[in-house]
Order: sequence, then structure tokens, then C-alpha cells
Amino acid sequence: MMRNTFGNIFTLTTFGESHGVAVGGVVDGMPAGIAIDMEFIQNELNRRRPGQSKITTSRAEPDKVEFFSGVFEGKSTGTPIGFAVYNTNQHSKDYDNMRDLFRPSHADFTYYAKYGLRDHRGGGRSSARITIARCVAGALAKLVLRKLNISVRAYTSQVGDIALDHDYRHYDLNTTEDNIVRCPDQEMAARMAALIAQVKAEGDTIGGVISCVIQGCPVGLGEPEFSKLHAQLGAAMLGINAVKGFEYGMGFAGVGQRGSTMNDAFVSHHGQISTVTNHSGGIQGGISNGEDIYFRVAFKPVATLLMPQQTVDIQGHSATIDVRGRHDPCVLPRAVPVVEAMAAMVILDNYLLNLTTKV
Amino acid sequence: MMRNTFGNIFTLTTFGESHGVAVGGVVDGMPAGIAIDMEFIQNELNRRRPGQSKITTSRAEPDKVEFFSGVFEGKSTGTPIGFAVYNTNQHSKDYDNMRDLFRPSHADFTYYAKYGLRDHRGGGRSSARITIARCVAGALAKLVLRKLNISVRAYTSQVGDIALDHDYRHYDLNTTEDNIVRCPDQEMAARMAALIAQVKAEGDTIGGVISCVIQGCPVGLGEPEFSKLHAQLGAAMLGINAVKGFEYGMGFAGVGQRGSTMNDAFVSHHGQISTVTNHSGGIQGGISNGEDIYFRVAFKPVATLLMPQQTVDIQGHSATIDVRGRHDPCVLPRAVPVVEAMAAMVILDNYLLNLTTKV
Amino acid sequence: MMRNTFGNIFTLTTFGESHGVAVGGVVDGMPAGIAIDMEFIQNELNRRRPGQSKITTSRAEPDKVEFFSGVFEGKSTGTPIGFAVYNTNQHSKDYDNMRDLFRPSHADFTYYAKYGLRDHRGGGRSSARITIARCVAGALAKLVLRKLNISVRAYTSQVGDIALDHDYRHYDLNTTEDNIVRCPDQEMAARMAALIAQVKAEGDTIGGVISCVIQGCPVGLGEPEFSKLHAQLGAAMLGINAVKGFEYGMGFAGVGQRGSTMNDAFVSHHGQISTVTNHSGGIQGGISNGEDIYFRVAFKPVATLLMPQQTVDIQGHSATIDVRGRHDPCVLPRAVPVVEAMAAMVILDNYLLNLTTKV
Amino acid sequence: MMRNTFGNIFTLTTFGESHGVAVGGVVDGMPAGIAIDMEFIQNELNRRRPGQSKITTSRAEPDKVEFFSGVFEGKSTGTPIGFAVYNTNQHSKDYDNMRDLFRPSHADFTYYAKYGLRDHRGGGRSSARITIARCVAGALAKLVLRKLNISVRAYTSQVGDIALDHDYRHYDLNTTEDNIVRCPDQEMAARMAALIAQVKAEGDTIGGVISCVIQGCPVGLGEPEFSKLHAQLGAAMLGINAVKGFEYGMGFAGVGQRGSTMNDAFVSHHGQISTVTNHSGGIQGGISNGEDIYFRVAFKPVATLLMPQQTVDIQGHSATIDVRGRHDPCVLPRAVPVVEAMAAMVILDNYLLNLTTKV
Repeated sequence: MMRNTFGNIFTLTTFGESHGVAVGGVVDGMPAGIAIDMEFIQNELNRRRPGQSKITTSRAEPDKVEFFSGVFEGKSTGTPIGFAVYNTNQHSKDYDNMRDLFRPSHADFTYYAKYGLRDHRGGGRSSARITIARCVAGALAKLVLRKLNISVRAYTSQVGDIALDHDYRHYDLNTTEDNIVRCPDQEMAARMAALIAQVKAEGDTIGGVISCVIQGCPVGLGEPEFSKLHAQLGAAMLGINAVKGFEYGMGFAGVGQRGSTMNDAFVSHHGQISTVTNHSGGIQGGISNGEDIYFRVAFKPVATLLMPQQTVDIQGHSATIDVRGRHDPCVLPRAVPVVEAMAAMVILDNYLLNLTTKV
Repeated sequence: MMRNTFGNIFTLTTFGESHGVAVGGVVDGMPAGIAIDMEFIQNELNRRRPGQSKITTSRAEPDKVEFFSGVFEGKSTGTPIGFAVYNTNQHSKDYDNMRDLFRPSHADFTYYAKYGLRDHRGGGRSSARITIARCVAGALAKLVLRKLNISVRAYTSQVGDIALDHDYRHYDLNTTEDNIVRCPDQEMAARMAALIAQVKAEGDTIGGVISCVIQGCPVGLGEPEFSKLHAQLGAAMLGINAVKGFEYGMGFAGVGQRGSTMNDAFVSHHGQISTVTNHSGGIQGGISNGEDIYFRVAFKPVATLLMPQQTVDIQGHSATIDVRGRHDPCVLPRAVPVVEAMAAMVILDNYLLNLTTKV
Repeated sequence: MMRNTFGNIFTLTTFGESHGVAVGGVVDGMPAGIAIDMEFIQNELNRRRPGQSKITTSRAEPDKVEFFSGVFEGKSTGTPIGFAVYNTNQHSKDYDNMRDLFRPSHADFTYYAKYGLRDHRGGGRSSARITIARCVAGALAKLVLRKLNISVRAYTSQVGDIALDHDYRHYDLNTTEDNIVRCPDQEMAARMAALIAQVKAEGDTIGGVISCVIQGCPVGLGEPEFSKLHAQLGAAMLGINAVKGFEYGMGFAGVGQRGSTMNDAFVSHHGQISTVTNHSGGIQGGISNGEDIYFRVAFKPVATLLMPQQTVDIQGHSATIDVRGRHDPCVLPRAVPVVEAMAAMVILDNYLLNLTTKV
Repeated sequence: MMRNTFGNIFTLTTFGESHGVAVGGVVDGMPAGIAIDMEFIQNELNRRRPGQSKITTSRAEPDKVEFFSGVFEGKSTGTPIGFAVYNTNQHSKDYDNMRDLFRPSHADFTYYAKYGLRDHRGGGRSSARITIARCVAGALAKLVLRKLNISVRAYTSQVGDIALDHDYRHYDLNTTEDNIVRCPDQEMAARMAALIAQVKAEGDTIGGVISCVIQGCPVGLGEPEFSKLHAQLGAAMLGINAVKGFEYGMGFAGVGQRGSTMNDAFVSHHGQISTVTNHSGGIQGGISNGEDIYFRVAFKPVATLLMPQQTVDIQGHSATIDVRGRHDPCVLPRAVPVVEAMAAMVILDNYLLNLTTKV
């Protein structure tokens, strides 16, 4: 994981700015001989596409992925898969007034300071549009995981103060896509959607939590020391735009507990070892134990507001910034597939690496 | 970050099991010409040494570090620094009865399943003893950061339900080492220590939170996309034994807020750009913005209890495990220097990488 | 350097097959603020373009590079530079009869055995067409090196048995591009061109040697142990299609010599240390010493012949292969810019890494 | 491969200077469950030990390896294997007069220029003593390769102008260890030994060639593009002290040939595909094809002479250097096991990576 490459065996290298020519990437280490379901991949992209509902940005980009290589007669060849999504609906003029201004809590200032220049249009490289490449790579990873009977499913579990009361076991995750918030509780979803709509009307933004569960993961994935499975999942999630926190298993709520309450007793059933409870979140000592892996990801409210804010310009003069453009009041609904994509990549990467543990 | 190596430019590769011959590592990428303060390094190690107080394990190991290379006439030479700490006070016999048993919520089962065998003595590779190497490497990193006027300071901010009321700005962090809990509030520290002592008397264990603040970090550290500074910090923290969660800046508490409340307005003072508030936690778009970087790390209660627990053996038969040995009832006090060490390594690594951004 | 990524700080990740949609790559770690001379880059590509002369393949592809990202208002932004060259002149039908046949000494068999399937058209991933991405990345590297006053120049020094009598110091390397062989000795170039033409007429192929010299390289580039500067150069060259050998400085010819003859005595001139001779080839202990770096690269005759050859098919039956298509009788003339590109990447990568040696 | 780490899956990270406390390393990615034959490992080290014969340096170091971790009850555990060899027979005083002088063609000057300081004793990090770690790691790799029925055997094929007439197929490589030069032709070995003795008597040094053959390597090892199997082998060899060139298969001698002569026709025998000739050297398109892999490595004469040489000191003043100490007149005999070790690591690393090609 250095700069713009993610993973060790199954890797994704990305490129692209929001208002550049295209965003895309290269997937290396895709196992050979996997049937590439193009419709599935495009559908994954569609899940994070702008303009998909009234509570997302009104930008309407088709986000059609074009594959350059690595697929032959419908199957992966084992060679790198290059791909791109052309940027077609950019309104770069919307950003003219922001050329010399730094949006508060956005990456404008830090990019400028780090590189000495920046592409100010639409957030440039720091735009969440960049996550398109992750969705494509994640979809490829999911195609392999599907063959291995491993599922990765995320959903919105909190928007603002509206939080689900139960964990993933209480819900039918097949209903997550039934509403525009991507929450498996339809009633709560409606309340969340209403809150987002209200916040949007105010020109404001709001945060939330995405939960994710991985099922069918075999025992043994993850590496001791620095590359513990949850450390890799955490790094993957914290690399998503607007994420401020990550917890798995008992998480922060478990710090007040005793070991005697939190420990997961082992039992054996027909020679199959499992645990009675799963406070560990499916990972022990950094290695998957065969139970469900679950974690939660905290998203801050989007930094770009449709209201005037105090800031400075690149000369350091005080200024007021008043952003135009089409922005999301809440990233959660569109971030759900990104969380899944990153998790799928981590699991596949570790699955492949684990094949080298014994000869 | 793959398997047992951490970092990109300044890297640490570790080895060792709790009851093997020695634990240690290799630091590569240490800048040349840095004065190596051996006393400082040993002191950092002493901060995580077992047996340092009545609330830690009673094992009494000197943990004296021996350097093999990379230092000449008191200065770093730019070549790799190999080092080891010999294991001298192991009571391997204490673990004889655990040879074929899996401790609940420990790494025993997953290691066995992954590798087909395991060193069962003292947790083997999964023991927190392994963090010795991190403290040595972190101390080396701190020597460089000191020259750069960057400080990294962690402290225990919560044990069980006893949590500090304020953030780091409220406390004098120079007093952290004044008590055995490593908490800068002496009164709260006493309460925490009492709780740990009580839990220990019950043969139980308890979790908590360590907070950390990095001050003096220049603008521009961190890389967009996957290697965001906070993603690297998060991975570093989640790689520490018993950690279940990581949050920085506003963290999980910020998800219920609005952007208009959370955004950090920019101001300029004599040409120096800063922010009025710091909900961002010193990082924007994955890159340091010059403000204080702060984060929180959740530790679960230690898995090893001094009471009987239900489990299975390697044949899958039900069994009761009753651990002997000398164990920590709460890892927080000894984990504080480990948190600092990992953070110091991340900051130095990114500082060095950032030197390559412009020519 | 793993699979399809090259370099540590300045990295290139490539994708593409000869008859796929496009070939291209992602350059990560390009320093920010460098003026991107698009004409220069396209010209570098043109130097390896097919159809450029009567002694190269008659395929006529424009090989026009399209940049996707990382350049804003004419300058590098420090973010990854994605690019592609669309494949437009492929005659995939030419390869229909080779679908189930393995060309001798080509990658057909090994790809099929490794991956279980292969894109048989035009060599697929193993085609030298893939080096397009290297030329683009190399051109970007050269733009930085130009600013640092470092030059990288290669030329054809041998074709078949026709070899230059002298080393690079004897020739005006500015004349290398004055002939279609890319040899700085115009008379020898004519003889080489005639040999290639004759071999082509016979449907056969021929090998040769490319020499390269790097001038203006500062002292200190390269890393001890495994990443010696010449080890990186060697790996870079051996990664080019058809390369069978690499030597630098005295090379193989020096093995018969004595140390007393080969050692390069140091002298000092106005405080500038240099060597009287340069048998070391500008590198000592794996680190550049400020003298010219020079090396030689051996290319085998191209495997694809325009004559019948004995082989087997994928069922293991004996068969005769009779290749159609448009192929190079000798790769040397078009490989010269590839050698330069790889060398430029290595030097820049090490230059950047070396910036982290001291703080 | 960055700085002091070699490999991708099976990795070696090394540390140590010639006159420091110890040299050693960490092997990560060793497959679990392999029987660790300590006697074999020590024997491999003994093959490169100084003082083993009259034609090597007279230093007499036991070079006894101590393992710190990763082995439990005689088997590899899958965790990193740390090890060290203490430096016990250093005569650091021998180097006092070289403290401020740069030995011609040695790494003294470049280290000093790069790092601003250097450990001048015995070459410090640039000493060939550092290859001890490679021999240990290579021995571990060989233990795995043995289980896979892959052999790696090197031998001295040329010293000065005395070169073997035939390639490896002509000799019984089991006789390589029967003489002090490590050459499978006993008569030629005697001539080589006599030449080395003569050169030694003159205080001079001499170079040569080591040949290596890998047998039993399965089809499919190596990765296209930058990580071609021969590129990795080349990088590994060029990283060995004093190496100036690498060639495999037909090598430099093949550049004058035609494709029609050099191509290796495929044949099939009972469904097993092989080639009639093996000019390719067992690798096609960067991937092993199941035939013998063979290559040649050029070693220059050792730089350290036992005669006065002209040089400069660190102030840039002219000086005469007159080296004392115990040095090898020819590195070839002791470099044979190092060549094998590096080749074994490359093959194992690629074997493991190749396990991830298909799922």
C-alpha cells in the first residue's frame, strides 16, 4: 500500500481527477480463468453513480466503464486489467470562483501546500469520484469471492442521529437495495431519507455509519503482526473519502467490558470448531476464525456546503467561499458499494496470499 | 505493509516469539548521521517492560536491547539497524497444559488452523511481547522527529467505564508518566489503577482507550487515495494487539453532526494559514494540515483470564482451560509507548516520502 | 518490482495486450510542478513506433498517446498519470491459424501452461507492443532528468556479427538518430541495415547489442545490498522483450583481468573527486560515483520467423507453424528508446529515493 | 526489492557490517511445516566461510548461525525466522590507516559521499561478509525446493583466462565440491587454483565466471512484464558483490545468430511438451518452460589489492593506500554458494507467487 496502489497480491492502482479526462485503474493479480460478468460490474458502478436518487447529487453521469485489457473471450487471462471511465458531465465552470480559495475541511489547502499547485475543479484527485476505480476492482474481486462462496455486504446503519437498533443478524440484507438510503430497515430508511432531504434543503450536510458483514470467509486469512486482517480492513476503510473511524467486533463499545463477558467460548460440532458468541468479529490474532466478520465505518458530514463559509485564499487573505455545483448532502448511500468493494479486495488479497502459507 | 514489515521508506521488519530465543527486528531507511541516544531507546523499552508496577504482569524481564549494526561511533550510518532482545525470564512450563487447548478469543485456534502447527508457549508470535521491536524502532523514529521538532504523545484516557472528561488540550501531558496507568489526570489515574487492581484480583481483565496527539507535524504529510495519513495511522494502531477500533478528529461522535458545525474555517495570521477549530484532527484529504493530529484507539479486555473457561482442544473435544502464568489484567498502561512508537514511525515514514514530492 | 509494476518511488504499472483495446499504464510518484512537454513524449513514442522504416515491421500504427490524469495546465500535479494508446491497426485474423499452436521460443506455451488460457493474437501480453507504456513513462522520467542535467542515451552497437569497434566516447551520440538502425557510426549503420534487410528477405531474424550511457548522474544514487544501482538497471533491461544478457563497466570482458589493471585510481581536481579510468562503469558498491554509467544489453534474434517451423499444438500433437503477419526481423532499432526509457526510470527512481537518505 | 529486502512472498531482510556486532537477517514468508535441517544450513554457511582453503582469505571465522525465531520443535512455524552470525574474528586495527582513505574501485568513496559518514572497518556494509545472510536464507529456500524436487547448483566455470570448454551437461556437478575452486572439472580446477595462488603471491586479484543450473523447475514460474524470471535472477546475481554481468540461455553469444538457428522446436512425448534444444535457457516470455534454467555470472577481480595504489583522502588530497588485512585474491570459490542461495530464493519466491495464479 503505497500512494495510489492498494493490495499485495491482488492489487489496484488508480488514476484520475474529477474533471480530468477519465478516472480508472489497473487491477493486477486477478486470478486467471474467472468468468467476467460485465453486467454485474457495471451494476456495481451504477450503485455509486451520481444522480441515482433525489437525495444524491443531481449530476447525471453514465459512468460507463471501458475495459482495455486482461479479459479474453469473457474470461480473465491473469494479465493486468486496465480500465477507465471517461468524465463526460463535468461543469468545470462551476468551480471558477474556487480556483484560489480553500474550502474549509476539504483537501484544497493541503493539496496546494503539498504539491505547490492543484487541479481545483471538482476537488481534483480528492474527489469521491475517484472511488469509481475501487468499485470496478471490487466487482472483479467479488466475482472471485462468489466462486469461493464468500459474500461481502454493507448497508447504511446510521444517518445523523437516526441509528439502527440491532446488528446485521436482525435484518434481511437482501432488502438493502430496496430504498435509496441502502438501509435494510425500510421504516428507518424512510426516516433517514427524510433527514437527508431536510439537510439538503438547508444547504447543509450530514454524516453517518456504514456497517458491513463478510460471510463464508474461511479460517486462516490475515497475517500476524502488521498485516492483521482487521488492520488491512481498517486501512481500506479509512482510505475512503470522509471516513473518520473504524471498529470491528465489539469495537469501542467493548472497552468498558470485562474479558469474562467478552471472550468467545469455543465449541465443536461434528468436528467443526466455532464460537458460541462472536464479540471478536470473526478475527482472532489478526486471522479470520471462520465466524462472520463485521465492522462499522464512521463518515463525517461532507465538507462542501451550499452556504457561505469563512476561509482564506492562496495569498492568505480572508475570504468568503460560496460553493456552486451539484453536491451530495450525505455520502452514505453512495458509499455503501465502495465499502463493499474495498472489503472484497482485502478478503481476496488475503485469500490469495494465504495460498502461499504451506507447500 | 506485508506480513512482518511495516512502512515504505522507514521500515521495520520484526521477528520473534514470546518463548523463543529472542525478539527483535531490522530498521531500514533510518536517515544517516542521526545521534543514537541509547539511553533514550532503552528507556522507551522500559516503559513497556513487564513487571514495572503492581497492575501489570509480575514477569520481570530486563528487556535489554542489543544492537547489531547500523550505528557507528554513536551515529546512524544509513544502513539497516538490526537488534534483538533475548528472552530470559520465560516460564515455558506454565504453558504445558495449554499445548493442545485453544484459549477463547486468543490467537491459538487461528494460528493452528492457518499454519498447521503453533508455538503454544506464551502466545508465541501472537504475544504482545512482540511489540518490543516496535518500541525500539519507534524510539529510533522519535530521535529523528525530535530533530524535526515533532512530538508524539499518548496516554490512557479510559479504563473500563472510567473515562477522561476532556481532550488532550486540557491536560499537561508531561505528567502522563507520573502514575502507573499513564494518564495525565492524577485523580482519574488513581481510580483507573484501583479498577485494574480489582479486576486483577478477580482473575478478570478489562479494556480501555488510549489517546494520542502529534504536534509540530508539518503541512503536507500523507498521500492521497489509499495511503491517507490517517489510514496509515489506523492500520498501525489496528496492528497492535487487542485493538478493536480507531478514530481520529471528530471520529464516531461526529457522524451525528452537520457539516456547518463540523467544518474548520481557515484563518491567516502573518501569512500562516491555520484553522479556527480542529474537528478534522489535523488531517484533510489524507494530508496533514499543520494542526495537531489526534486520535483514539480502543483496546478490548485481554483474552487470557485467570479463571476456568470453556473451550475445545485440537481434536475438537470439549475442554476446560485454566490458565496459569503471569498476565496483564489490562494492557493499556504498557500499550501507551507502543501507540507512540507506531505513530512516530508513520509520521517519519511519511515525512521522508514527502521529500520526494518535488525536485 | 512485482508483476506489472516497476520502481519504488517513481513507479510504472502497465496493462495491455497487442490485440486488446489499448495498451497503457499509470505513472505514480511523478514529482509535482514539472512542465509536461507533450510533443517530446509523443516523439519518444514515435521512435519505437512500428512501420518507421523499411527494416522494421510494416504495421503502421499511429501510437498516439492519450493522457487521462495527473497533468493540469501543462504541469504535473503530483497525482498519478494514467495514459493509454489505443490499438487501431491490429489484423487479428492473421493469427487465427496460431490459436492452438505454440510458436517456438515464444511465450505462447508458457503463458498457456501458466494461466490455462491465453490471448493468442499478436503475442497478447508478451508482445513487444507492451513496451509502449515504458516509453511514455520513460519520457516523463526524462523530463525530470533534463531538469537535473542528467542524460540517458542508447544506441545500437552490434547487429549480428557487425559490431562497433569502440565504446561510446568515440562517437557523437547526437548522430544516433541519423540512420534507421540508431547507430552513431553511419558507415557501420549502413552495413547493419543491409544485414537486417537481407535477413528479412530470408524470413529470418537476427540479434544484437544495445549500448547505453548515462551522463551527469550525481554521486550517491543506488542502495547497498539488493538494490544496487546496476542490479536495478540489469533487472530493468532483462525485463525488455528478447534480452538475454546485461553487463556494465568492464563486464564479461573484465573477468580475465587483474585487479591491478582494472582498479580505477581516484584523483582530485579543485576538490572534485573523480577517477582516472572508469572500468567500474560509474558505479562502485552499487552506488553511482559521478562518472559516466555505461552498460550493454544483449538481444536475441526475434522468435517469430516467416518460415515454417516444427512445433506442437495445445493437445500435444506435432504440427508445423507458418506465421503470417508483419514482424520485425531485428528488434534493435526500435528497442533503443525502450532501453533509454527503462534506464531513465531507474535513475529518477533512485534519485528520488536518495532524497530520503539524510534529513 | 527495496534497499535491504529481497523477494516478494519469500523475503529476506538483512543487516550487518563486517566489523559490527553481528550480521544477519529476517526471512519472512517461509512456508510452515518444513523440517529445518540445521546441519544442512550450517554446512551451506561453511561453504562460503573464510579460511576454508589456501586460496581464500586466511581469516578464520566460525560463522556459526544462531536462530532467534520461527522454528519450533524442528519445523518452520510460518512466522519470520530471525538469525544472526556474530562477528568474532575482526581485526579492526588493520583498517586504522584506511579510515580517511578511499580504496580504488571499492565502495569507500560512494558510501562516504552518500551517507556523509561510513564504517570504514573491513568495508562495513559493503563487505562480502554480508552475504552470510543470503546463504542462510538460501539454505532455508533449498529445504523447501528439495521437497519440491528442484535443485540449484552453481560452479566456477572460469578464472581469469582459464575457462571450461563445455556447458553444465558435460560435467558431473556432484564433483564440484571436490576441489577448493568449486569447479566440476578436476584438472581445470587445479589449473585455476594454481593461477589464483600465483595472483595471490603477487598481491593482486583476479576475476572469473560462475555458472548455475536449476533443474526440476516446474512450468509457469515467473511473471510477465517487469518480473520476468530471468530479470529477477539477473537482479539477484547483480546484487552480489563484484558482479559485473549476467546472461542466461544463449546470452551474449547468441546475438550473432539467426532466429532459425536459435529457436527451440517443441516436441511432445507421452503428452509431455518439451523442446529439442534449449537455447532459451529454460525461460520463454519470462516464464519457466520446464527445461533446465542456466545462466552465467561475471565477477570482476576483487578491488582490495595488497600493493600500494594511488588514491585520495576524504579531504581530497592525493595519497597512497597500502592495504593490510586478510583478503581473497579471487571471490569465485566462496561466491558459488551465494549464487546458489540467491537463485534458490528467486525460484521459491516465484513458486509461491505462482500458487496465486488460479483459484
